Amino acid sequence: MAAVSLRLGDLVWGKLGRYPPWPGKIVNPPKDLKKPRGKKCFFVKFFGTEDQIGFLGLGLMGSGIVSNLLKMGHTVTVWNRTAEKCDLFIQEGARLGRTPAEVVSTCDITFACVSDPKAAKDLVLGPSGVLQGIRPGKCYVDMSTVDADTVTELAQVIVSRGGRFLEAPVSGNQQLSNDGMLVILAAGDRGLYEDCSSCFQAMGKTSFFLGEVGNAAKMMLIVNMVQGSFMATIAEGLTLAQVTGQSQQTLLDILNQGQLASIFLDQKCQNILQGNFKPDFYLKYIQKDLRLAIALGDAVNHPTPMAAAANEVYKRAKALDQSDNDMSAVYRAYIH
Amino acid sequence: MAAVSLRLGDLVWGKLGRYPPWPGKIVNPPKDLKKPRGKKCFFVKFFGTEDQIGFLGLGLMGSGIVSNLLKMGHTVTVWNRTAEKCDLFIQEGARLGRTPAEVVSTCDITFACVSDPKAAKDLVLGPSGVLQGIRPGKCYVDMSTVDADTVTELAQVIVSRGGRFLEAPVSGNQQLSNDGMLVILAAGDRGLYEDCSSCFQAMGKTSFFLGEVGNAAKMMLIVNMVQGSFMATIAEGLTLAQVTGQSQQTLLDILNQGQLASIFLDQKCQNILQGNFKPDFYLKYIQKDLRLAIALGDAVNHPTPMAAAANEVYKRAKALDQSDNDMSAVYRAYIH
Amino acid sequence: MAAVSLRLGDLVWGKLGRYPPWPGKIVNPPKDLKKPRGKKCFFVKFFGTEDQIGFLGLGLMGSGIVSNLLKMGHTVTVWNRTAEKCDLFIQEGARLGRTPAEVVSTCDITFACVSDPKAAKDLVLGPSGVLQGIRPGKCYVDMSTVDADTVTELAQVIVSRGGRFLEAPVSGNQQLSNDGMLVILAAGDRGLYEDCSSCFQAMGKTSFFLGEVGNAAKMMLIVNMVQGSFMATIAEGLTLAQVTGQSQQTLLDILNQGQLASIFLDQKCQNILQGNFKPDFYLKYIQKDLRLAIALGDAVNHPTPMAAAANEVYKRAKALDQSDNDMSAVYRAYIH
Amino acid sequence: MAAVSLRLGDLVWGKLGRYPPWPGKIVNPPKDLKKPRGKKCFFVKFFGTEDQIGFLGLGLMGSGIVSNLLKMGHTVTVWNRTAEKCDLFIQEGARLGRTPAEVVSTCDITFACVSDPKAAKDLVLGPSGVLQGIRPGKCYVDMSTVDADTVTELAQVIVSRGGRFLEAPVSGNQQLSNDGMLVILAAGDRGLYEDCSSCFQAMGKTSFFLGEVGNAAKMMLIVNMVQGSFMATIAEGLTLAQVTGQSQQTLLDILNQGQLASIFLDQKCQNILQGNFKPDFYLKYIQKDLRLAIALGDAVNHPTPMAAAANEVYKRAKALDQSDNDMSAVYRAYIH
Repeated sequence: MAAVSLRLGDLVWGKLGRYPPWPGKIVNPPKDLKKPRGKKCFFVKFFGTEDQIGFLGLGLMGSGIVSNLLKMGHTVTVWNRTAEKCDLFIQEGARLGRTPAEVVSTCDITFACVSDPKAAKDLVLGPSGVLQGIRPGKCYVDMSTVDADTVTELAQVIVSRGGRFLEAPVSGNQQLSNDGMLVILAAGDRGLYEDCSSCFQAMGKTSFFLGEVGNAAKMMLIVNMVQGSFMATIAEGLTLAQVTGQSQQTLLDILNQGQLASIFLDQKCQNILQGNFKPDFYLKYIQKDLRLAIALGDAVNHPTPMAAAANEVYKRAKALDQSDNDMSAVYRAYIH
Repeated sequence: MAAVSLRLGDLVWGKLGRYPPWPGKIVNPPKDLKKPRGKKCFFVKFFGTEDQIGFLGLGLMGSGIVSNLLKMGHTVTVWNRTAEKCDLFIQEGARLGRTPAEVVSTCDITFACVSDPKAAKDLVLGPSGVLQGIRPGKCYVDMSTVDADTVTELAQVIVSRGGRFLEAPVSGNQQLSNDGMLVILAAGDRGLYEDCSSCFQAMGKTSFFLGEVGNAAKMMLIVNMVQGSFMATIAEGLTLAQVTGQSQQTLLDILNQGQLASIFLDQKCQNILQGNFKPDFYLKYIQKDLRLAIALGDAVNHPTPMAAAANEVYKRAKALDQSDNDMSAVYRAYIH
Repeated sequence: MAAVSLRLGDLVWGKLGRYPPWPGKIVNPPKDLKKPRGKKCFFVKFFGTEDQIGFLGLGLMGSGIVSNLLKMGHTVTVWNRTAEKCDLFIQEGARLGRTPAEVVSTCDITFACVSDPKAAKDLVLGPSGVLQGIRPGKCYVDMSTVDADTVTELAQVIVSRGGRFLEAPVSGNQQLSNDGMLVILAAGDRGLYEDCSSCFQAMGKTSFFLGEVGNAAKMMLIVNMVQGSFMATIAEGLTLAQVTGQSQQTLLDILNQGQLASIFLDQKCQNILQGNFKPDFYLKYIQKDLRLAIALGDAVNHPTPMAAAANEVYKRAKALDQSDNDMSAVYRAYIH
Repeated sequence: MAAVSLRLGDLVWGKLGRYPPWPGKIVNPPKDLKKPRGKKCFFVKFFGTEDQIGFLGLGLMGSGIVSNLLKMGHTVTVWNRTAEKCDLFIQEGARLGRTPAEVVSTCDITFACVSDPKAAKDLVLGPSGVLQGIRPGKCYVDMSTVDADTVTELAQVIVSRGGRFLEAPVSGNQQLSNDGMLVILAAGDRGLYEDCSSCFQAMGKTSFFLGEVGNAAKMMLIVNMVQGSFMATIAEGLTLAQVTGQSQQTLLDILNQGQLASIFLDQKCQNILQGNFKPDFYLKYIQKDLRLAIALGDAVNHPTPMAAAANEVYKRAKALDQSDNDMSAVYRAYIH
C-alpha cells in the first residue's frame, strides 16, 4: 500500500458503515486530547460537527434542507417569517432563533433561502436583519434564486462588515430537497464554499463552484429559464394533443420511448394527466425566474424569444390563480 | 407447464439464439410439407420472410430503415428520386425499382419516406407515381411526416383503387434509424399494421397504433413540435450563458445532473459545444414540422405561442443557410 | 387655349355636374350615329356603360362594391352561394345569375370576392364554376384576399382557356366598401386593369397596378399583417391600461393627440370602449391573413415575430367565439 | 355683454397680438402698485413670468423644452451632467447651475428629464442631488419616463422634506419637443400642475392630469409600448415586402391611402426608405420603455405578448449597435 502524505489543512473524507462519505480536514489535535505519547498524531475535524449552523427561511426548499442538515448531525438554529413553521424542526432538534440578526450572531455559518430579490434584500437589510448580526468572520450563504445585481449588492454589504459571503442557489424541487439530492451552484468566497462541504453533502447530490459572486445567480437563472420554457412547451404539446383528439397518455408514452425522455418530462406530464398540481416548485417562482432571466438577457442585449413567450404564458396562468400551484399548472393557461 | 391453446391466425413470436424475437402467425402448413403423419400440426409463418417489400425514398431516415430491413432478411425493392443513392443498397442485396409505380406493382407492401406534404403527394399522384401501381390488395405505408389533411387525402385515393393504407411516421433521427431504434406511430388499416410487424420490428424500438388515418400525423407533429421548441430553448440557454460569461460546458454538466437530463439534451448540447452540426435531423425539416404543428393548432383555434416563437427562430436559422445542418444549428440564429 | 391632340384609344375623363370624373376612351363613332357632315368627329366611350359586369360573392365587402357599381350605372349580374342575399341587389337593378359559370358566360368582366383560398379555388374549379364559363376573351377579376400560390394557380387555368385574369384584392372594410372608398391592389393583365377603370372608380378611392400576378396578393397580405398586428397591440395597450387602473378613454385621448393618431386607431378603440364588435372586418379573416402572411415569410425564410405573436392572440380570440365579430374583438382574448 | 364674476384665485388667459393665449391667475395687486383711487381693482399674475424655473437634463427632449421655456419668457437655470451642453442655452439667456442641488435651491420649480429609472434616482438621491436642495415649498417636476415604483419613491422623499412633487413624462420626440408640441402626462400635486401652466403651455400641445403619482408613469409606458410595438410591426412589414420582391415605397403609398395613415407611420417609413436613422427618439429608450411596460404587466399578471415579441426584436437591434439611432432602426434587426 502506497504511503499517503497528509498535511495540516488537507481535506479527507471519512466513511463509517452505511453512512455516506463525510468531509473533514486535517487539524492539530485539541490541546486536551489524551493521545499516544511519543507519536506524531494528526486529527480529523469533520465539517459540520462543530460549526453552529443557522438557517433562515423554511419554505418548500428550506424545509427539506434543514431536515437533512439535522439528520446528518449538524446543530441548526432556525428562523422563519411565520414562526409556527419552526415548531416541526424544533421537535427534530433545531434551536429557535428570534430574529435573523440573532441567528447570525449565534451561528458560525448562516444559510438563507427566501423567495425573491426583494425578500432576500429585506432579510439582510431590514430591521433585526442579517446585517446587524454580521461581525468579522461571520459567514452568510444566500441560497435564494435572485438576480446577479441583488446578490452582488448583498455580498458587498456583508463583506464590508467583515463577513464572508457565498451565494449558493439550488436547482431542484421540494422532493429533491427532501431527498438531499439538490444540485448546488455556488460562487463567492472559495474558503467558505469548502467550509460548507458537510452541509452541501447533507443537502445535495453535487455542487459546483463557479467563481466570483453573481455567476451562480446567472447560471441558476439560465437553468431555470430552460426548465420553465420546456415546461410551457410540454403543456402546449399536451393540450394540442387533447384538442386534436389524441390521447395525452399515449403522447407521454411516445415521448418516454424517445430521446427526450427525462424524469422532469415524465413527472410534469404525470401531474397534468392526474390534474395534480401540488407544488414541487411554485409556478410563481418559475415565472419570477423567467422574468429575471429575460432581464439578464436584456442587460447584455441578448434576445430570448422562447423565454419571453413562456413568460407570457405563465403570466396568464398567474392571472388564473395558479401562482401557488406547481409550475406544471401552466397547463391551465392553455385550456382557459 | 400450462397447456397453450393456439388457433389459426394467432400471433406468435419466435426466438432463436441471439436474434431478437421475431413475429409470426399460426397458419396451416404448406401443402407440400413433409410432416409427421397422424399428428395435428401447425405451422408458423414468420412475417416478412415472404412478402415482397418496396421502399421509396432513401434520405437520412429511409437509408437506415432499408439497411435494417435487409439485415433482418426482407426482400426489398428500392427507388429514389436520385437513383445513385440506390447503388449502395443494391450491393447489400436490394433490387432496383425504376419508378414508384413499378415498385408498387411488383411488391406486396410498399413503404415511402419523403420530405414534406408536397413530396408525399407528388410521389403518389405524379407521373409513374404510386397510384398507378395500386391494385386491389396492394399495401402502401407512408412514413413521411406530413399533415393530417395530406395523409387523409392520400389514404382516400389509395383505398378508392382497392389498396390498403397505413400512415407510419417515425420519431427519431439518422442514428436511431441506423440502429433500428425508431419509434413508429401508425394509423389506418389495422390489419396492414400487423402485417408490417416484422418490418417495424426491424426498424424500430417500438410502435404505436393510433386508430384512424390522420392520428399518427397529428401525434407526430406534436412530438416534433415539443422537440423543436425544446431545441430552441436549449440553444437560447447556451447562448445566454456565453454572452453572460458563463461556461457552456458547466451549464451542460449542471443540466445533466438535474431532472431535465436526457439523451436529446446531452447530444444537442454536445453538437453545439463542438460546433458539429452534421445532420441527424435536418433543421429545415424540424422547421417544416413546427409550421405544420402551428397550422394544426390553427385549425382548432388552439394557441401555440412557444411553437410560434420557435418557428421564427428556425426561420432566422434558415436565412443564415442552416437548412441542411442538424436542427441544433438553430444555435446560430442566436449568435448572428 | 392650347390645342389637344387626341388619338383613337386615348383615355379621357368626362366630368358632368357634381358627378365624379368618369373614365372613357376615344373611339370611332358608332356607324349609325348622326353626326355633323364634313367634320372629323371622335367619340368617347365611357367605360362601364356597355360592358356586362358579373359579381360573385355578396359578403361584407362584395355587397358594398355591387351597390356602388349599380349606382354608377353599370349593368351587374350577381350570384351568391346563399341566393337570398341577391334579392336586395335585384331590387336595385341587378340581374340574377344562377351559377358562377352562367355569370361568366353572360358577362364581359366577372369580379369575385370570397373568403379564403379554398373558397376562391372552389368558385373557379368546382361544379358549375367560373372555369366552365371561361371562353377566349372573357375577363375574370378575383378580389379575394388569398395567397400568391392560389391566385397564380387560378390565373393559369383561366388563361389556359383563353381568359384574361386580374387579381384585385382590396384594402378596407365594410364601411369603406359601402362608401366606395376602398384601396385596390391589382396585378396581372394590364389591359384588363384599364378596362376595369370605371368599376374601380366606382368602388375605390384609388388603385395600384403592381405587375405580375401574385404581387397584389403578397402586398395585400403584408398590409393586412401590419393592420392585424397593430390591432392586437392596441388591444394589448387598452387592457393593460384597464388592469393598471388607468382610464381607457384617456389613453385614447392621449393617443389621438399624438403622431400615432389615425382613423383606424380611433375607430378600433371606439369599438372597444363601447363594447361594440359589429363586424367591419371579420376577426376570422384578419387571422387568416396573418396566417397567410406568416406563410409568405416562411417561404422566403423571413422571421415575422410580431405577426406570429399576433396570430396566437387571434387564435385565442377565435377559441372564445369571436370569429364572426370585428377584428377589434381580439380585445376579448386579453380579458379572458 | 354678460357680466363676468371673477374671484381671487380664478384662472384667466391673456391674449396679446399674435402670441398664444397665456395662463394667469387673479391676485391682489402688489402693494406698491399705483392704481386708480376709489375703484376695486384686480390684478392678473401671469404664470411663469415671475417663478424661477430650473431644468436638469439637456438630452433630445430637454433641449427643445428649455428652448421653448426661454422663448416664452421664462427665467431658466440649467444643469446637465456634461456641462458643455449648457453653453448653447446660456447664450440664449439661461443661467448655469453647478449642481442639481444648487438649481433646486435657487429656483421655485425645477424640472428634470433624464434617461431611465437609475438616472432619475441618482439625480435626486446622489451627491449634490435634488434632495439636498429641497426645502418646504420647493417644487420638483420629473419629466423622465420611468416606472411607477421609481416615481412613487421619488415623490415620497421629496414630499417628506416638505417639497411638492409632480411627475410629467411627455409623449413625443425631438422634433415635437423643438416645436413645443409635446403631449404632457402629469400626476401628483394638482396645485403644482396648475402652477406649471405657462411652462406646459410653452413646451406642449396639450397636457393631461391623471391623478395620483404613478398614473402618469403607467400611462406613458402604455403609450410608448403601443408605439414601440407598432414600430416593430412597420419594420416587419417593410422587410417582408422587400424580401418578397415588393416595392417598399409602394407599400407606404398604399398604407398612406388607408385608415392606418398617421404621421408616425409616414415618418418612420420615410426613415427606413431613406436609410436615415438620426435619432428623434433613441432606440435604446423605446426598448427600455417596452421592458418597463412588460414589467408593469408582470406586476398585475397581465400578458403582453406583442410587447414581449417587440422587446426581443429591439434587443437584437441593440446587439447590432443601433442603441443610439432612432427607434426606426429596429428595421436593421430584420435584415441582419
